[in-house]
Amino acid sequence: MGLQKGKENCIIDVEGVKVGHVTLYERIDDENNICTGVTAILPHSGNLYRKKVYAGSAVINGFGKTAGLVQLEELGLLESPIMLTNTFSVGAVMQGTLQYMLEQTEEIGDTTSTINLVVGECNDGYLNSIRLQAVKPEHAVDAIRAATTSPVEEGAIGAGKGMVCFGHKGGIGTASRIVEVDNQHYTVGSLVLSNFGKREHALFANLDSKKLDTPDGSIMMIIATDAPLYDRQLRRLAKRCAIGIGRTGSNIDNGSGDIAIAFSTANTYDHHENKPFESIEFIRDDHPLMNQLFQAVIEATEEAVIRSLAFAETTKGRKGRIVEKAPI
Amino acid sequence: MGLQKGKENCIIDVEGVKVGHVTLYERIDDENNICTGVTAILPHSGNLYRKKVYAGSAVINGFGKTAGLVQLEELGLLESPIMLTNTFSVGAVMQGTLQYMLEQTEEIGDTTSTINLVVGECNDGYLNSIRLQAVKPEHAVDAIRAATTSPVEEGAIGAGKGMVCFGHKGGIGTASRIVEVDNQHYTVGSLVLSNFGKREHALFANLDSKKLDTPDGSIMMIIATDAPLYDRQLRRLAKRCAIGIGRTGSNIDNGSGDIAIAFSTANTYDHHENKPFESIEFIRDDHPLMNQLFQAVIEATEEAVIRSLAFAETTKGRKGRIVEKAPI
Amino acid sequence: MGLQKGKENCIIDVEGVKVGHVTLYERIDDENNICTGVTAILPHSGNLYRKKVYAGSAVINGFGKTAGLVQLEELGLLESPIMLTNTFSVGAVMQGTLQYMLEQTEEIGDTTSTINLVVGECNDGYLNSIRLQAVKPEHAVDAIRAATTSPVEEGAIGAGKGMVCFGHKGGIGTASRIVEVDNQHYTVGSLVLSNFGKREHALFANLDSKKLDTPDGSIMMIIATDAPLYDRQLRRLAKRCAIGIGRTGSNIDNGSGDIAIAFSTANTYDHHENKPFESIEFIRDDHPLMNQLFQAVIEATEEAVIRSLAFAETTKGRKGRIVEKAPI
Amino acid sequence: MGLQKGKENCIIDVEGVKVGHVTLYERIDDENNICTGVTAILPHSGNLYRKKVYAGSAVINGFGKTAGLVQLEELGLLESPIMLTNTFSVGAVMQGTLQYMLEQTEEIGDTTSTINLVVGECNDGYLNSIRLQAVKPEHAVDAIRAATTSPVEEGAIGAGKGMVCFGHKGGIGTASRIVEVDNQHYTVGSLVLSNFGKREHALFANLDSKKLDTPDGSIMMIIATDAPLYDRQLRRLAKRCAIGIGRTGSNIDNGSGDIAIAFSTANTYDHHENKPFESIEFIRDDHPLMNQLFQAVIEATEEAVIRSLAFAETTKGRKGRIVEKAPI
Repeated sequence: MGLQKGKENCIIDVEGVKVGHVTLYERIDDENNICTGVTAILPHSGNLYRKKVYAGSAVINGFGKTAGLVQLEELGLLESPIMLTNTFSVGAVMQGTLQYMLEQTEEIGDTTSTINLVVGECNDGYLNSIRLQAVKPEHAVDAIRAATTSPVEEGAIGAGKGMVCFGHKGGIGTASRIVEVDNQHYTVGSLVLSNFGKREHALFANLDSKKLDTPDGSIMMIIATDAPLYDRQLRRLAKRCAIGIGRTGSNIDNGSGDIAIAFSTANTYDHHENKPFESIEFIRDDHPLMNQLFQAVIEATEEAVIRSLAFAETTKGRKGRIVEKAPI
Repeated sequence: MGLQKGKENCIIDVEGVKVGHVTLYERIDDENNICTGVTAILPHSGNLYRKKVYAGSAVINGFGKTAGLVQLEELGLLESPIMLTNTFSVGAVMQGTLQYMLEQTEEIGDTTSTINLVVGECNDGYLNSIRLQAVKPEHAVDAIRAATTSPVEEGAIGAGKGMVCFGHKGGIGTASRIVEVDNQHYTVGSLVLSNFGKREHALFANLDSKKLDTPDGSIMMIIATDAPLYDRQLRRLAKRCAIGIGRTGSNIDNGSGDIAIAFSTANTYDHHENKPFESIEFIRDDHPLMNQLFQAVIEATEEAVIRSLAFAETTKGRKGRIVEKAPI
Repeated sequence: MGLQKGKENCIIDVEGVKVGHVTLYERIDDENNICTGVTAILPHSGNLYRKKVYAGSAVINGFGKTAGLVQLEELGLLESPIMLTNTFSVGAVMQGTLQYMLEQTEEIGDTTSTINLVVGECNDGYLNSIRLQAVKPEHAVDAIRAATTSPVEEGAIGAGKGMVCFGHKGGIGTASRIVEVDNQHYTVGSLVLSNFGKREHALFANLDSKKLDTPDGSIMMIIATDAPLYDRQLRRLAKRCAIGIGRTGSNIDNGSGDIAIAFSTANTYDHHENKPFESIEFIRDDHPLMNQLFQAVIEATEEAVIRSLAFAETTKGRKGRIVEKAPI
Repeated sequence: MGLQKGKENCIIDVEGVKVGHVTLYERIDDENNICTGVTAILPHSGNLYRKKVYAGSAVINGFGKTAGLVQLEELGLLESPIMLTNTFSVGAVMQGTLQYMLEQTEEIGDTTSTINLVVGECNDGYLNSIRLQAVKPEHAVDAIRAATTSPVEEGAIGAGKGMVCFGHKGGIGTASRIVEVDNQHYTVGSLVLSNFGKREHALFANLDSKKLDTPDGSIMMIIATDAPLYDRQLRRLAKRCAIGIGRTGSNIDNGSGDIAIAFSTANTYDHHENKPFESIEFIRDDHPLMNQLFQAVIEATEEAVIRSLAFAETTKGRKGRIVEKAPI
């Protein structure tokens, strides 16, 4: 390790980035508990459709159901909030996010084209009665509306409410790093939804060896930066997330949907332009700053995973299952 | 061209494949019309989660919002119906399809892992008041329940109700071809949801040149076969769909989400197996049969597009817009 | 069809692009003939390593041995001539091209990094005694040195000397198209090395049906443009080549390595820059000009294939085999 | 960590796998040293073209010049030795490997199709006078001929002669792991050509902090296994190599070509078959054995990197440069 941390050591250290949570937690009966939620990450406070940002993604392991990557990769642009939730709520969250964006943007689907929504997920079905589909479209709207530029609450909150990581309570974690060139500073923030790993594989701590029989799980990793980069470069940043989770002990298990999305707030792409040309400024791949950015992604993602554990309280879920706070 | 057509010249010539439509058509007021729907394609009549089929996909142009391709590509398996609808109903259709599959399969999200849903879309917003989000989850359930092995109704029906193709009414089209080796016959079926193209680019007919100012549109292409193939090979089949639409006149325009999914019914993969090994039989890539299969995909997809026009009646939609039957 | 052709209907209509051929043709004995060559395409007349151009590629069918695509895709840059030759001469042509570039550029492999060479190929083994490996490194150097901005000789020349297309003599073909925006004109040029297709599949002419038992073959497609585009967009152009060859009758057969590379001469990337930032101007994907560029790629590639046949004379090769000029 | 090591902790623990080195080391003058070589990895002792093996690859970072991946990915087969050498010798090694395969296999390029050669590389230009292109085709032939099933010599040998890793002498390293199911054992072997990393990033040891100003470098990673897997699965194994090198301290730097190739010796694909069908047995992705295989790849690759350092002696190269043995 070694790069300087951002002021709040949080994805919101990237100026303008907003994060909002909605958490659902309710005992239904002896068998069932609602223990889930939604987390929204917004690249900026403006209209995300009208002012798109450059983005890239990496499917590190594709046992996942993230929606919206096809178009994000084709065009290199993100035009909606990035939403995180549980696996069975991707549809509901798409609907809610769509509803929010339609309200904000009367021209979508009327005088202009449609909108590409990005919704990531992990399976919180060990604690959450996922079959009950407790997340409704309005929860997505609420998460977006709740988004602020304040430091993000971490642990068992939002989409992280029911997640399990390394056999302990996981969920939302975030961290940030600063890179520097010519007295100009750039920030890289990482936010993860952690839901993977086996106790015996943890490299950051000696977790007790009592096995918890959870499925392979997954992790969503969102990288934000104010460094000027375009889609191909952001895909390169997203790919480096693999190293960050690998250092925590992930073996990228078969059943783990390990998916990373990176965006830059430095260049925007206005939807309503009739001009033929666009121009962007970006960091050269061969400038030493690029390796620093890669390192920042790796460090921030590794730390975000550890923080997702450190901040997650012991949580009780369905079937009386309890997942304990990690002893770290 | 020259391969023999299947008995019904339809995707259901591939034994076991079922297709169902739900069509929504209603005048709301002077400005608004519901003119949309859902189409479901089921590889077989059994439980699709418990008995998965091998599949592959090709993103010919990624300006589209199809959900479910990440996992399909990682594992090479399809474990749900393939659903087609309009762009803003992907979320609702995911929810409905999930609900259907959960009802059929009590173990999903309880004692076993989650399920990957595949939902494709085109933008029918020229005729359909897409912002009204008329498609509800139950319409997806209804489309699945309506699925039969009878010949598919084509044209302005199901997900095709509001689609526009080459400036004329498009929608659902299907065709099939037979290939043969050692007196054994295999069938390739193609079903398309056509919503692309400009009149002046049509190669299959001289369409009148009066311009219709529709957006770039998209096309979803579903390939079914009973030829034994595995995921890598099915991806190869899916890629050949580009040639089929290219021959109708598609230039694969910028705003067109041109996405193909191919599956084979010949090998299945049982979800509930604890055995370590699986085995499959498949056609060798270097056997002449493979080129015949490619040709079958191309011919059937080209014809499916033309049939989607030929069977689509003149349709009136929102804002008093009328899209006419193609003069073919 | 419909876009205006370039002045010479040739890839060199893109200002600065140079093409050079070296042709090897020699009877060795009753069994063996050398019937092969090398073709070099240079994006500009300067030092290609020091002044790189943006590029993208598309592997339409990967039964091919093109070298250099891994790095081209990672960095989105082309830093060497694009070389075309026969399948067994990729190594020799890499060596020759390397030697040429090292001579031109003393710092490569000494004070700066290495160089990425791009060599495409088709199998001319039906006519050429390919096992004899007649192409030597110096032939690659000679092809580069022979490159000029004059109109390209087409047909059975350079790398095209021994190629067979639709059962007739194929080889090098080229064409170009003009697109226009705001009174500014851009040129798209396509150069192909054609070696694919069966007579009975030709869509551009009624070729006689006598079968020629050639292998599946391949096609290399090089797209040049002076339109300002970056790597992601150039990959989109390269993908459209599939439509161009599909319209000539290609089914993208199993054994056909169908590979496209597109580059733009409008923005360059200087190797020796220590500055952290770079900037580029590019055409917006959603501007109508982009669809025109796609159409230009398709039209020029289709015509380039047909021209590769039209200009190729009847050629005699190994084992007394004769491949006749196409009756077009 | 924790999986059992193979008998020799070497890639040749996978039965049948052979490895051969040719090392070139010669002082030319005060400025120039030849300090390079070739390493050949053969999946089995038979004719590799006639009896192909299933394979998959992963481009972890594409700043590399590996040849042969396009076809390997399209067909999922490896039909030649995997050759490793320096960046400027890819062409020469392709030629030599071709020559060897042509001698062994008279039908290639005559009565049957061509052959796909796989040549990986790293840039050894810090120590080796790479511009002199000392590697000749016959060195590739010699490396193949030298291949045996004996334990592999590691360190500054073969293609590893001039490589630098973490600011110390790197090169060839190998390790293996055993996985087990139902009393049946499978072996995973990893062989790396290490040439990446900065001293201050090493995680496996406290290397002294004196900087060595080497370029970003690269790493080639070859995974062999006797576990029955097919191409898609082998690609999954190859992708896990990223975690192995990440744990040694790699940040996957910009200029590092980090490329992995995995093959299985369990199923073979006979070139000369006219039968339409093929069948394979393979491990189910959802069987716990798959995660063990992933872990084996990670552990063996991490250890292979460390061993490449541990066995590499201090080496003197061009311009009087000396790269010291790592203090481990």
